[in-house]
Formats: sequence, structure tokens, C-alpha cells
Amino acid sequence: MTRKEIPVPTLERLSTYLRALASLDIQGVEMVCSSNIEAETGISAAQFRKDLSYFGEFGKPGIGYYVSDLQKRIEKILKLDREQSVVLVGAGNLGSALAAFPGWKQHRFSIVAVFDNNVSKIGRKLWDLEIQDVRELVHANRDYQAKIGIIAVPATEAQNVANLLIVGGVKVILNFAPATLRAPQGIVIRNVCFIQELAVLSYLLSEEESKIENVALPSGNK
Amino acid sequence: MTRKEIPVPTLERLSTYLRALASLDIQGVEMVCSSNIEAETGISAAQFRKDLSYFGEFGKPGIGYYVSDLQKRIEKILKLDREQSVVLVGAGNLGSALAAFPGWKQHRFSIVAVFDNNVSKIGRKLWDLEIQDVRELVHANRDYQAKIGIIAVPATEAQNVANLLIVGGVKVILNFAPATLRAPQGIVIRNVCFIQELAVLSYLLSEEESKIENVALPSGNK
Repeated sequence: MTRKEIPVPTLERLSTYLRALASLDIQGVEMVCSSNIEAETGISAAQFRKDLSYFGEFGKPGIGYYVSDLQKRIEKILKLDREQSVVLVGAGNLGSALAAFPGWKQHRFSIVAVFDNNVSKIGRKLWDLEIQDVRELVHANRDYQAKIGIIAVPATEAQNVANLLIVGGVKVILNFAPATLRAPQGIVIRNVCFIQELAVLSYLLSEEESKIENVALPSGNK
Repeated sequence: MTRKEIPVPTLERLSTYLRALASLDIQGVEMVCSSNIEAETGISAAQFRKDLSYFGEFGKPGIGYYVSDLQKRIEKILKLDREQSVVLVGAGNLGSALAAFPGWKQHRFSIVAVFDNNVSKIGRKLWDLEIQDVRELVHANRDYQAKIGIIAVPATEAQNVANLLIVGGVKVILNFAPATLRAPQGIVIRNVCFIQELAVLSYLLSEEESKIENVALPSGNK
């Protein structure tokens, strides 16, 4: 059995389509064409069609795609068609915001446990989950069997937490701490870094400003 | 004057290098070679050299790069070598987490104002900033002149907030709400979507699991 691995940028676009489709679905839209997707996501209609062609035929020529069909197909590709347990480490503001996020259920992710190292938090509730001592993580995950972990702790604690998650059986980590984490092969880490996003925006802002300047110059507006 | 626009994936990698360099700098490392960067970021040494070559010569052949030099050069490329004002909308858990984030100053971003629509929050402090009524945003930003806005409000409010930011003069928006936002040309929006990150991880997890299965099969381990 051979599997083609899907490149990460394609995965990212697929999940962007999924978000757009969910939004269209809520609006009661039943069918879309690739130009609707372009309007909704900013990803070109051609790129959208190319991404889907990778997985075989989807749409009806000249008509478009059924929103609910397309959602299901993409969910299947992304393996979102099954329940997935997630453990969250960090019950601070960020952890609270993440736990309260309404999108989990929709995508069949379930935060099954929350851990922290702050004794004043341990035993209290974060929404409907009891905050557990992070030192119990490895042991506790024998029961939960979560393969996905989220790190929402300060940078100085992030590597320790990653180590605990990995020893506890977690295979993929979403890291919100501004730290570069080390992990053995076979463990996948994705870093969410606000500052990196802002750095990109900072450059794009300067681009926009220079365009405005160029338009104002006689020679620039060509 | 011609400018080559830097593709977004390159910008993203540049900010990843910057993060790695900051981490090495804290550890007291003075010089790095491209393989150090690979170890630190997971981005290949060849890709790193290619990215830098885009901006001219940086390193010393056979020796490597001065960490502090390289940081400054990349900061300059990303236009992080100047103070930048940011307005934050949303003083909930996520907004609080973002405002408390220690990386702002380091990258010369300054959150100058926080807005919310919740009357029980308006007038109170979020860290050292007074939470202002979101209806004052457009007027208030005449003084702040912030070009960067962060949206940390529920999805249902996000488009309204984006509209206010844009009318108020904001040019680039970092959107944390799980909503697809519409904006006129010339406005740059970047969406930070946790669920999208998890969707990517979900697929990568299934890949890892299938690799383990394949290794267990006699024909799979080649």
C-alpha cells in the first residue's frame, strides 16, 4: 500500500476551505463554485481546483460543489471524521481562551484534560474540567490516550511540558509558547507564534505603504 | 525604484530564523552556521542559505554568521527596526493573554490601546491599559495612528470590528476570531486559526500512525 503524503501548505489550504465551507453552510448556501471559494478565502479558484484534483473528482462540471459533500470529503482527507482527544497544558488566560473556543466540537476534537503547575489552580475548574497537577500528566494520559497536546505555558516551561507530553504518549503538539522545542523523530510540533505573524504583517504593511507612495509618484504608477 | 516583493512563505521563514536567533542569543551563542539554524528550526540549511542569498551576502565563508548581526539584518528586512503601534480589540481571556505576551517589546511592537464592547469591562484595566469602548475606536485611533490591529473577539463580532479598524486607519489585521473577514483592497488580513492548525496536525498524526503500521509490516520497512 502506497500513500502519497500531502504537503503541509496543501493541508493548510484544505483547512482554510473547510472553514469557508462551514461559514457558507451556516449562511444556508448549498452549492458553491471555485470562484465563491476564492471570494471567501482569498485563495485563487485555480489553486482550489488544483488542490481538489489531487484527491480525485469532487464537483459537478458547470454547476459546482455541494457544500456539505465537500465539507465531508475534506474532513475525511484531514482525518477529522473521528473523535480526537486533546490534552491542554496551561490554565492561564491563553489556556482558558483555548478551552472556551467553540470550534472544537464541530471538528470532533475533545479537550479531555487540563494541567497546570500552579498549586493555586490545581483542583479548581477550567470551564467544566478540573485542573490537574502537571506532574500527573504522564500517568493520567495512560487513561486518556490522547495523541494531541497543546502547550499554553510560558516559554521557560515549554520544553519540560513537551517532554512530559511525549513521555505520556502524545504524538503531535500545538505549541503556543514562544520557544523552539526539541523532540525526537516521529513527534510533530507546530508552533503558533503571534510575533511571527506580526513580523509578516509588519513587512506587508511596509509594502502597502510603499505602493501608496509609488502611486503618488508620476513614475511609480505603471 | 524597483522593489522585489518577498513571498509570504519566505517572510514566515525569516521570522522563524529570527526567533531561533533570539533563543541562541539568550543562550550566549555568538556565531552560528546554517546547520545550527537547521537544528534549531527544522528548516534545512540549504533553504536557510537560499533565503538569505535573496538579500545579498551575510555570513563569513567557512565560519558562519554573527548572531547579533543576522538578527539586525533580518529585523531590517521585516521592518522590525522601528516602533509600531498596535490596537487590540477584545479584552477577554485571549486578549488578556495576547496583551501579556512578553515578546512585543523585543520586536518593538507596542499595544497602545485595548477596546471591548462589554460595559462591565470598559473603564477597567487590562494590565496597564484602560479598556475603552469599542465605539470610540475610530475616533481614538486618530490619535494613536496605529496601522496594525488585532481582533480577539467572538466570530460573530469580528467583521464589525474589522470594519471599525479599517475606518479607523488600520492597514493590517491579525485576526484570531474563527471567521472569514472581508476587507477592501490594500488591507492585509492574517488569520490565526487554532482549529486549522489542529486539522493539519490531525492529518500528520494519521501519517505518523500509518508509518508505524508500515514499519511493522515486512514490506513496509524499506
